[in-house]
Amino acid sequence: MNIILLDPDHTLDIGLYGLSARQQTHLTKVIKAERGAVLRVGLLNGQIGEGIYEPPSDIMPGHIHSLNLTLSPPTPLPIVLVMALPRPNMLKRTLHNITAMGVKELYLIHSAKVEKSYWQSPVLQTESIEQCLLEGLEQAKDTIMPKWSLIPRFRPFVEDQLPSILEGKTGLLAHPYEAIPCPVDIQQPSVLALGPEGGWNEFEVMKWHEAGMKSVHLGDRILKVETVVPVLLSRLYPS
Amino acid sequence: MNIILLDPDHTLDIGLYGLSARQQTHLTKVIKAERGAVLRVGLLNGQIGEGIYEPPSDIMPGHIHSLNLTLSPPTPLPIVLVMALPRPNMLKRTLHNITAMGVKELYLIHSAKVEKSYWQSPVLQTESIEQCLLEGLEQAKDTIMPKWSLIPRFRPFVEDQLPSILEGKTGLLAHPYEAIPCPVDIQQPSVLALGPEGGWNEFEVMKWHEAGMKSVHLGDRILKVETVVPVLLSRLYPS
Repeated sequence: MNIILLDPDHTLDIGLYGLSARQQTHLTKVIKAERGAVLRVGLLNGQIGEGIYEPPSDIMPGHIHSLNLTLSPPTPLPIVLVMALPRPNMLKRTLHNITAMGVKELYLIHSAKVEKSYWQSPVLQTESIEQCLLEGLEQAKDTIMPKWSLIPRFRPFVEDQLPSILEGKTGLLAHPYEAIPCPVDIQQPSVLALGPEGGWNEFEVMKWHEAGMKSVHLGDRILKVETVVPVLLSRLYPS
Repeated sequence: MNIILLDPDHTLDIGLYGLSARQQTHLTKVIKAERGAVLRVGLLNGQIGEGIYEPPSDIMPGHIHSLNLTLSPPTPLPIVLVMALPRPNMLKRTLHNITAMGVKELYLIHSAKVEKSYWQSPVLQTESIEQCLLEGLEQAKDTIMPKWSLIPRFRPFVEDQLPSILEGKTGLLAHPYEAIPCPVDIQQPSVLALGPEGGWNEFEVMKWHEAGMKSVHLGDRILKVETVVPVLLSRLYPS
């Protein structure tokens, strides 16, 4: 937890920001913060700076006060990420890592080679997803919560939603067949579509191409999802 | 397992290559390969191509024959990676991923902020490390086994071994304090030193700088090791 993210809706009184159980535990047990400790804090979807810690007492839960917020959050990546739903035990880590890297718009989409059972996973519950995103923000000292949607049906998304999402952006389909090398440092907004472990099927590739997405590859090496995502993001937006 | 890596020392007869238990299980249970199946194979530290599968019988274990090896393994990354020993539950995944990305020379080094207990982990046994590297090669369809060393003592390494390792290479220290941005697409060999979660200490930073390593950063976001490694490698060598 590299920053304490405060919820502007969770104030105990004017200028006094409450802490979640997880934050309180972190401050008590890991940081061992004492009254008056100056902590790095940020307002969710707001600015970053410092605040002063007041430990829990009989009359009041632990909280942060005297906020001095002077810094903007780090620059987001100008990318819309559309990912075939990963398997549940990869999803939490993936959400955390893409958030830490600065992705602000995410669609988790169905694909023929995504097991239907993945859509039943408790990891997909809203609180669970929001928690992963929050932890990604805390990791990277960011405050801006990504927007995300679950897209259980592939076709309506690519036919009806994708065209407007794609406007003014480069569309890149991670699909290493008849593909050009993934561009480096593109310096413009993009939509990046990442398939499931087995890849997109022919129909899906055709629909992506129809919408204007171009197939790109990363060279001869086949990388696991946990590696390919940071590699792609870093290659498209190295700075 | 995207390629079956054959050990030139594990032949059952001339041109007949034996399989490890893990490979045999994969072929029997996952691929469900039958006699005559043409498989993608590679010779450890050699070329890549195809071979023909013969299932196990009463007289002979399962094996691959009639090798036709026509392709070179993918281009390695011209990098020497010196990593402070990660915690054991991260090490296996890290070894796999850096191998899949093409790292061929690795030193796992001690640092003040590396828990001494990590050095006792069974994950550090030779067979365990070699297994992770092998699986990284199988993932990426590579054949060239990385060279690796355990460096339990920091100072002798940076004083005695590092100067010759650094010759003809750019030395980069991942240390985001008083650092320049990590260069993009450096197009020359490098040595990259990655610290433990808590970072290098002052003495270590001084020794690295004395040897000629330059501190570099990746911007405002703090990333986890599992993300920072692919990001750095991809940034230095995007193509």
